[in-house]
Order: sequence, then structure tokens, then C-alpha cells
Amino acid sequence: MNFNFTIQNVLIAVEDGYANVDVQVVDGTIAAIAPRLDVVGTAINGENKLLLPGFVNAHTHSSEMWQRGIMSALPLELWLAELYDFAPLEREKVYLSALGTAVETLLSGGTSVVDHLVLIPGKELETIATAVRAYREIGIRAFVAPLIQDESLTAGIPSGETQQNDSRLKSGNSSTALLTHEPYFRSTAATLELIEEAVRQFHRPDEGVSILVAPTGIQLCSDDLFEGCIELSDRYKLCRHSHLLETKAQEKLAQEKYGCSAVEHLKRIGYLGEFTTLAHCVWLTDADIAILAQTKSTVVHNPLSNLRLGSGIAPILKYRQAGVNVTFGCDGASSNDSQDLLEAIKIGSILHNVTDLDYQHWITPRQAVEMASLGGVKGLNLADQLGSLTVGKKADLVLYDLTSLSLLPRTDPIGLLVLGRPTNVVDSVWVNGKQIVADGQVTTINVQELRHSLFHHSQWEAQRKSQTVTQIEAHYRTVMGLSDE
Amino acid sequence: MNFNFTIQNVLIAVEDGYANVDVQVVDGTIAAIAPRLDVVGTAINGENKLLLPGFVNAHTHSSEMWQRGIMSALPLELWLAELYDFAPLEREKVYLSALGTAVETLLSGGTSVVDHLVLIPGKELETIATAVRAYREIGIRAFVAPLIQDESLTAGIPSGETQQNDSRLKSGNSSTALLTHEPYFRSTAATLELIEEAVRQFHRPDEGVSILVAPTGIQLCSDDLFEGCIELSDRYKLCRHSHLLETKAQEKLAQEKYGCSAVEHLKRIGYLGEFTTLAHCVWLTDADIAILAQTKSTVVHNPLSNLRLGSGIAPILKYRQAGVNVTFGCDGASSNDSQDLLEAIKIGSILHNVTDLDYQHWITPRQAVEMASLGGVKGLNLADQLGSLTVGKKADLVLYDLTSLSLLPRTDPIGLLVLGRPTNVVDSVWVNGKQIVADGQVTTINVQELRHSLFHHSQWEAQRKSQTVTQIEAHYRTVMGLSDE
Repeated sequence: MNFNFTIQNVLIAVEDGYANVDVQVVDGTIAAIAPRLDVVGTAINGENKLLLPGFVNAHTHSSEMWQRGIMSALPLELWLAELYDFAPLEREKVYLSALGTAVETLLSGGTSVVDHLVLIPGKELETIATAVRAYREIGIRAFVAPLIQDESLTAGIPSGETQQNDSRLKSGNSSTALLTHEPYFRSTAATLELIEEAVRQFHRPDEGVSILVAPTGIQLCSDDLFEGCIELSDRYKLCRHSHLLETKAQEKLAQEKYGCSAVEHLKRIGYLGEFTTLAHCVWLTDADIAILAQTKSTVVHNPLSNLRLGSGIAPILKYRQAGVNVTFGCDGASSNDSQDLLEAIKIGSILHNVTDLDYQHWITPRQAVEMASLGGVKGLNLADQLGSLTVGKKADLVLYDLTSLSLLPRTDPIGLLVLGRPTNVVDSVWVNGKQIVADGQVTTINVQELRHSLFHHSQWEAQRKSQTVTQIEAHYRTVMGLSDE
Repeated sequence: MNFNFTIQNVLIAVEDGYANVDVQVVDGTIAAIAPRLDVVGTAINGENKLLLPGFVNAHTHSSEMWQRGIMSALPLELWLAELYDFAPLEREKVYLSALGTAVETLLSGGTSVVDHLVLIPGKELETIATAVRAYREIGIRAFVAPLIQDESLTAGIPSGETQQNDSRLKSGNSSTALLTHEPYFRSTAATLELIEEAVRQFHRPDEGVSILVAPTGIQLCSDDLFEGCIELSDRYKLCRHSHLLETKAQEKLAQEKYGCSAVEHLKRIGYLGEFTTLAHCVWLTDADIAILAQTKSTVVHNPLSNLRLGSGIAPILKYRQAGVNVTFGCDGASSNDSQDLLEAIKIGSILHNVTDLDYQHWITPRQAVEMASLGGVKGLNLADQLGSLTVGKKADLVLYDLTSLSLLPRTDPIGLLVLGRPTNVVDSVWVNGKQIVADGQVTTINVQELRHSLFHHSQWEAQRKSQTVTQIEAHYRTVMGLSDE
């Protein structure tokens, strides 16, 4: 394949303005950026277009696409119960939703996706193989993070034991808990073996597919599982991923479980670090924030999911002031309910203006672009290879058509892209120098066929009834102090 | 023109589910809704499509489109200063941005727009004439609300006098104010004459164009202006519009100006009522909310603008619980920076989940659709004629293509539409029975030509420097208690 091309006369961001330049890509690597370069390889017309480094969709769950639009208005703990009651169990669905997630990510400026992949029970390796196949076919850079846990769903809800006196901290399980927790169906050791096998079979960073260790979070994972993941991550040089303090309930649970904050506990067991990305981070104290800064961990902000589930507003401006690296994710499509990365970046950029009256702290569109690109690859150990228009870096690039109505009239192109509501603006996408979107169309898979398949594997419906929600709702409302109505 | 048509086999919302029906429109009015009706007029294939009543973009400022994407990250009072320093002064621009606003509204489900129209000084009637011409050409139902004031911009910033002791209320202007306010360039009487002339020339509700009285808000308007507007509104049966308590600064200002809340004052002078729509309503007390309920006033929620300008989160769930009618607006494109109504509805639906932990109060997608349609027309005195799929109502209708990738896989169509990120989903739009969008394209104007004109009347630029912001920023920071950095 020919990974040599030259984009001519394209707008790029420089300092506080823009420049019209040519960009040469040779063997998939940015070879030169300057006006009037010789054409190497294919000539690409960049006129009236903006070139940016690709963004990272730094946290999602691809198979949630099957339930987008229909999930009830519920907070995370109950929402998860509904989600799992109706989770897809067919590999074909995993394949289609991975493709769908990739298409929406690519057409909204993303070149990389971190898929915290929900595994079909009993078909775990097959689930991973299927998602990997989809991402390889479409050509997006994929970070597949198999979602693992070793405790059952109800263990993620606080018992409420320490509710009366939050300062009297306890650890261990409560004998008076209102819910009894079934043991998880797969042992911790078997789960770790599964991840190791996935690494052997699918971890091929040079080919654009990486496996991450990704315990779902402190709410459903034992220390043994976290420690096993740390060991695997050290042995195979894997990046680490997890949810962290997405809800108030998880904050309570951490106190019940550890007698300290979840962040303190994760630091103690050694899970945090420069290549650990942590989704959500809504309920952190100032001391927790200092720990994230000190360990150089990355926060993945999922603003739409945090709003949809009522989780709260993550203190992103505080993170940035503390020097914590922050990037953006769409989160799974059942809590968003889209995979439009530009939408996540927009809302993630402006949401925090209501949390800090001093506008000098607000995130500017240029800062948002850097958070979404360089910020994303930092936590994935690729900042030296990706995330900016820099000679020597790999060509994960996105070309935006500035003549789309949604980006007119002409003002500040990056401002329009980040703060507007761009539609049909992605003209071309390259990953590792390979073009996978041209003229606004994905070239590597047949999107019409994908739409057909998604249509025929689904049906319109209105409300569903989750049995598990019915079982646990009363306990949840009591623990969270919600009145009966 | 033929305003008779029958949409066949289309999905509509019923109770908690959906039904497949035919919808007959005769002379622009919904004549029948039932399965297998006779075809009257043109037959429209509704298969795999969803039919909803058109939404109302219930608050915007069309000419702000010229500055979208480039406005600095500033709170309202400073942002306004920058906005006015660079406001477009050409009628051609007013025309183009009215068309652009209408196109984006139509293609995101809106059939009506309330344009709180910024008037070019010295060309006020021409500005109104131009916007009216644009809306008539494209065929959207237009509520033109000429933005008027009779105090100059700096009068909208509190003097800070009562800051030390907010309970010791004062009225009147402060002699120690740090800013001196120029008198406004046009007299109150002249402004009221202008509006009356606009009513005579352009107020044609039966033809789809209405004029509203629309003092910008208590921050820049005298009681004389409000009272003159009330008088005009009574005489000509005009609906009323205004901004209300968008920012914390306006809350302070109202106390300085009136010694009571802005809502109490507006009630006292008689501006509130069933056909008064109030944009923003972020800083209201519980007593204020009770007044809105009692007067049957409508709140127009502009969530994106409120986030972008850091104004705050309007207590929408409280409004709904108090029985206040709430609908959605995009606000002007300089504070959004789009006119995508579905985006405003999505964010306006989920933003409040973080303000009330009890998910039983959260806004469901079906409630959001009702707020955006029926909620919008209520405050415009058209609830008996528009806002729902009801036999006898006018056909302001939108047909959505449910086979768009962004609305797949098939789950709950309204959930996908409201909570997802729909792109290219509007197939057809009718206003008063006239089709103005077909196959996803506006049929009444040439959108390619519009894009061309927007492109050629503008240029890419990065940061600009607003002189007025420089002049007033120090005072603003002092009054708002922001530290120097």
C-alpha cells in the first residue's frame, strides 16, 4: 500500500493563528510541514480544509450501541442492572457495534478508540477476537480493554452501613447488608488467564491493536484482580484502564470497603501511573486530585454520560490546574447515546464554565483540541508517536471541510469545530498513514451494508421492564437517601 | 399550491408506545390520523420514518451567526461587549444569517423560530424587513422579536454598591458607580414607535409572521419601555418576550435597581403572563418560581448558551414541578455556537440530572418532545392550533428518517432522537401544510448558494481584541468578586 501523500495548501493551527501549508507524509510518518513542498506520493487538495491530529475516543463500550435510545432515566447502579438484563449475547452484534462505534468516532474526528469491551459470558476470547477483527477491518487504531470484574453486580451498591456516621470507617462486607451478593461466575485466576491469552493472541501495537488491562473499577473488583492486572501490565508493557468514582454511591462504597478513598486505595496497591487512564473521576477530593497529579495518571472525561446518568460534574478545571492530564471519551452509547466525539469535546469544554465563575480558567477550543489529541495519547504511552502535527510523528490525521454550512460563516475554524455543532465536516481520515475516510465516506467497510445489518438485527420498541432493577431499586433508594414517592 | 397530502404507514407516538398510521392533511390542516386511510392529495411514503409535531426554536438571535466560533470565553456581560464591538452592520448579512438560522432549525426538527433580532442602529425597520423577507422566503414560521433597550451596555453591569450588604436594599442609580453610562442613542418613545410601525408593516400571523414585543431585559430597559411594550402588546394582541435573570450579575443588578427580584418587579409592572416567554431564567428564587407559575409565564431554556457563558444551570426540574411551562431555545449562535435544536433539547433534557439525585424527576425523551413542541407554542398563544399531532391542528410537521446510522440500531425512536446525536435525520418538513424540506434538502431556497454567500462574506481569523472588554473588565471582576491573576 502507498502511505505516501502530500496535502497541499491546507490550514493548520500555529501559535494563536493559522497557516496555509503543505504536509508531506512518507511511509505513514509526517515528513515535512511547510509552504510549497514537493509532492511526494498522492497529492491531496487541502484548500478550504483544516488539518488536525486525530482525537482519541478514550473511553467507550462498543456493544452498548445495541441499547442506545432505550435505556431508562436511571442513575448508574440501576442503569447497569437494566443494561445487563438486556445485553447482547451474539458475536455478530459485537462485530456490528464495534464497526458502528468506529464509524461514528472516525466521522467526528477520532482516529483511536479505547473500547472497554463488555465480554459475552462463556465467549470471552471470542468477543475480544470479534471486536479486534472489526477494528482491523475498518482500520481505526484500537485499544481493546476487556472489561473484567470478579464480584457480582449488586456488590457495587453500598450497604449503607456507614451511612449514619461517615467518619466511623469500616472495612469488609457487612453482615447486615440488605442485598446478598452471588459469587461472580468466573474466578479471579481464570479472568487473569483470559486476559493473558488475549494479550498473546491480539496485542499487536505495531499493527494498531493494543490490549489494555481494564478491571471495571473498585466497585466490582477485588485487590487480587487489580494486582494481577498490575503484574500483567508490567510483564507485557500494557497500559491500564479503569472506571473511577463515577458516582456518589461509589464514593460511599470505597469508604465501606477500604476505609479510605478509592484513589488512596488504588495508589496503595500500585494501580495508578503514567499509563493508567481513569474514566469519569467525578467524586474526587482535593487530596485525591493531588495523587492523580503525582502519579501522572490520566482522567478520561465523559461529560455526556455523567449528565445522562446524573453522576455529577467532574471537576475538570481543578484537574487541569493541578496538572492532571485530561482527555475525552464518549462512554458507551447506552449512556450518551451516541459516539460523536466532537459532541463530547464540546460539552466537556463548556460544562465546567458553570463550576468556576472565573472565565480565565475556562477551556478554550485550542486547549480542547490538545486535550482530545495529545491528552489522549499520553495515557496510552504514545505521546512520542502521535497526538500532534509534528515531523516524525505517525500520520493519524483528520481533514475537515470548512465549507460545510455548520462551519460557516468563516470565523475561527477550531472555535467553530469545537463549540459549534459540526455535521458532515470530516472529509478525510488517515490512520498510520492509511486513508480510511475519503470525501466524507468510510472507504474500508461498506457503511450501507452496516446500516442494513443494524436495522435487521433490531426492532423498534418502547419501554422495557428490567427485573433486576425491580429487585434492587428499594435498597438503592434507601442507601442513597431518596424518599419514597 | 397544493397543501393536501397523505403520509402513509408512518410511525407516531401513542401512549407509551408507537403506532403505524396514515396521516391525512387537507388545506394545511391535519384531517385524519388512522391506519389505512384513503390517499388525499400527494401520497408520501412514511415507511421507516417517525412523524412528530415541529419544534420551536424559542429563543435565538439570528445575526449572531456571523460571530459563532470566534467569541472569547467570557461571561455574558463581557461577552456582550465583544459581541457588539463586532456586530454586523449590513442588511445583506442579516438576510443571510436569518436564512442560515432557519436552515439549521429546520434540519434539526424546528418549524418555528423566535428571533430576538438585533437591530442595526439607524436601520432598525430595514433590519426587521430583511429578517421577515428571509423567513418568508424559506417558509419557516417566524416570530420576529426586535431586540430593544433604552439604556447603554454598561448599565447592565451592577455597580457593586450593595455588594457588602445584600440585605440592605437600595434603589436608584449610584453616584459612586465606577462606570459612567452614556445615554442610549434612541429615546424610549422613538423605540416604541418603531415597534408599532414594525407591527403595522410585518405582523401577519395568518401568513406565518408575527411580531413580538421584546425588551432585552431588566438590565438595559426602563420601566417606561416595559410599560410601553405592555400597552402595544395589549393593543395589537402581541406576545411578549424578554431575557430574564440569565446571570448572577443580573440578579445583583435587579436588587440594586428595584430593591427586589427582577421577577417580582416584572410582575408588579404587569409584564408577565400566559403569552410572555422568558429566556434563560437561571437565577430565580423559589418565590420567583411561584410567580412564574401563577402568571402562567413560559421559561425558554437555553442550556448550551448557559454553559458556554458560564451563566449557571437553570432550575428546570423545579420549574416543571411547580407547573411552569418550559421549552427550549438555541440562543444566538455566538453563545452556542450552532442552531441545532435537537442538540439544545438533548442537553436541556440531561443537564438537570446532576441537580436532582432523584431520577424520578428527570426529563424523559417523550417529555422533552412535548416541551419542545407543545411547550413552545403555548407561550406563543398557538397551543390550540399547533404543537401536537391532533386532528384539526395545522400541519407543522417533521418526518425523521429512522434508517440513518445515527438512529440505528432500532430501539426507541424518540429516545434515539432526543438522547442520541442525530445527523442527517430530517427527511421532510411541512409548515402550515407546505412542504419546505424534502429528502433532507430545503426546497424553498438554494442552500448551496447560501453557503457560498456566507463563505464570501467572511474570513478565517483567530483572536480579536475587543476595546470595550478592555475598558470594563476590571470593574466587572471587582463587582463579581474575581481575584486578579
